Amino acid sequence: MIRPSVAAMKGYIPGEQLNDPEIVKLNTNENPYPPSPRVFDAVREALTGDRLHKYPQPMGDTFRHAASEVLGVDPDSILIGNGSDDILTILTRTFVPEGGRMASLAPSYILYKSLAEIQGATFETVPFTPDWNAPSPWPLKGTHLTFLANPNSPSGTTLRPADVRDLAEQVGGPFVLDEAYADFAEDNGLSLLPEMPSLIVTRSFSKFYALAGIRFGMAIASPEIVRELAKVKDSYNCDVLSLAAATAAIRAGEYYAGLRSKILATRGRLTVGLAELGFRVTPSQANFVWCRRTDRPVKPISEALKAKKILIRYMDYAGYGDGLRITVGTPAEIETLLVALREIV
Amino acid sequence: MIRPSVAAMKGYIPGEQLNDPEIVKLNTNENPYPPSPRVFDAVREALTGDRLHKYPQPMGDTFRHAASEVLGVDPDSILIGNGSDDILTILTRTFVPEGGRMASLAPSYILYKSLAEIQGATFETVPFTPDWNAPSPWPLKGTHLTFLANPNSPSGTTLRPADVRDLAEQVGGPFVLDEAYADFAEDNGLSLLPEMPSLIVTRSFSKFYALAGIRFGMAIASPEIVRELAKVKDSYNCDVLSLAAATAAIRAGEYYAGLRSKILATRGRLTVGLAELGFRVTPSQANFVWCRRTDRPVKPISEALKAKKILIRYMDYAGYGDGLRITVGTPAEIETLLVALREIV
Repeated sequence: MIRPSVAAMKGYIPGEQLNDPEIVKLNTNENPYPPSPRVFDAVREALTGDRLHKYPQPMGDTFRHAASEVLGVDPDSILIGNGSDDILTILTRTFVPEGGRMASLAPSYILYKSLAEIQGATFETVPFTPDWNAPSPWPLKGTHLTFLANPNSPSGTTLRPADVRDLAEQVGGPFVLDEAYADFAEDNGLSLLPEMPSLIVTRSFSKFYALAGIRFGMAIASPEIVRELAKVKDSYNCDVLSLAAATAAIRAGEYYAGLRSKILATRGRLTVGLAELGFRVTPSQANFVWCRRTDRPVKPISEALKAKKILIRYMDYAGYGDGLRITVGTPAEIETLLVALREIV
Repeated sequence: MIRPSVAAMKGYIPGEQLNDPEIVKLNTNENPYPPSPRVFDAVREALTGDRLHKYPQPMGDTFRHAASEVLGVDPDSILIGNGSDDILTILTRTFVPEGGRMASLAPSYILYKSLAEIQGATFETVPFTPDWNAPSPWPLKGTHLTFLANPNSPSGTTLRPADVRDLAEQVGGPFVLDEAYADFAEDNGLSLLPEMPSLIVTRSFSKFYALAGIRFGMAIASPEIVRELAKVKDSYNCDVLSLAAATAAIRAGEYYAGLRSKILATRGRLTVGLAELGFRVTPSQANFVWCRRTDRPVKPISEALKAKKILIRYMDYAGYGDGLRITVGTPAEIETLLVALREIV
């Protein structure tokens, strides 16, 4: 009864979500700080009147207008999503036929492969260069959808906008610039949109906006593409409380600029601390840090941390090797981690 | 760039969502009453601690345990969804290959056809018998997924559980019993599940539980099927506030039994009032009523109501004809509607 492509797949395994308050949770790149107080106010305000028992705005127009002002883009170029994963799913279903071809650089976000499997498409990867750039010439032609996570996970590295443009032009077809972590980076690809009709930029509210719990993301693309994506999304894919929260968040720029400064400072401390302990740390533009070791295996380190109730993400990529991806938590959490690592290594 | 099946489709058009508080909104089958006070308490409680900035439970285990107790089913037989539409989308992607075959009785929920179009599948319909039952023998063999809305929209009618079983057995393959409105009906199909491994029951929290704004639904099926569906759903498809709301709602049975009594009483009043005005009303087991006229076209009636700021749903089905679907609102809303209709007809 089950489609063969689905029956054969293992399924994407998200990072562990444990509710033990004693756990230091540095494994799924959440923001360690709460969202803006305005978010809480907006959700409480949405609990009045008839908003819970009436359907929400199908396209999220109030949010789209707020985001349009903040980002300087046309409201019709924004598609709302139930998390960035919903957006990536909608993109796959809009562009990729069964038996089609999807691609990304590697190592990168492992969900892309799961999306291909669900769609019954093939998934091809191209290794990053040793300095985390895209090879040129780009070897894959005629793919139905190509993803670039920028900043990339697990590396935390970025391609500069000019290199993104060069890559997207070589790809030719629909190109998803997955900017889940771009708000922590020095630059982003929004400025490329007007000149590149096959580019789709995606954003998450789970990281920078500290709203992993409420599930919100968006795509920014040409209004023509957004019109097609809107046919594929569920009619009411975002709920009234998430929309209220996301609208308040995107308007609270000053609050989030403050969080960003704190996280970037802690990221610096984490990077230095790991290097002092003998890790090879990749300079990060995201809210996590990727590190490896040449002198000993890192999986036991991850397990020893877990025994001390510190969760980080051990990741192993075929053809590339393994490493540890550590979320930038609070200064106290990072000190706890570094103390524990000192005992372990 | 766009998949031909998507480019060719018009897209599902949801009922109008207007924010004018003067409008009497009887077009999208929302509950006219607010959800249980416990729902509001649960959402407010979820605004404390770190729950907005941490990821929610991927499978919604707290909800599943609550629903398991209320429904008397195994927690592993429940899949959570971002609205019942998310569940129907997941089912389509799990069972139907591109070029596959989907089916439903007709006239029925028009989203089924949109789901087939997005998936690149063919969609076949079988007319209801004049008394709103399924024809026997069932003429379609070998479909990948077959839907029965029970109660059906727009008719509000039901097949009895024994007839559902007979139909599902004849269909043979995966059979979705879409029970979005079943909580308003005299009976439902949950008892059929243990004996029918290809049956999937779906439920919405938008109607009976008065939570259209928060987007929540579920599938109930064998644990084997739920395991496959879980591969296809987005990892975190339900947010922490929706999960809190849905968990509180399903535990507030007494409150909702009270709402149900009120809605069924108003449904009776609406049915009688429409008949007195010359409408042919189909006896309903849902929170809406379907009516037609033989003496004059009904589309102008719908338009005249809209001019009076009363929204109902005019629906026209190829090969069947048209009619009006009217949501059971509050007693005051239904009196306003009946007064307006008396002036119009």
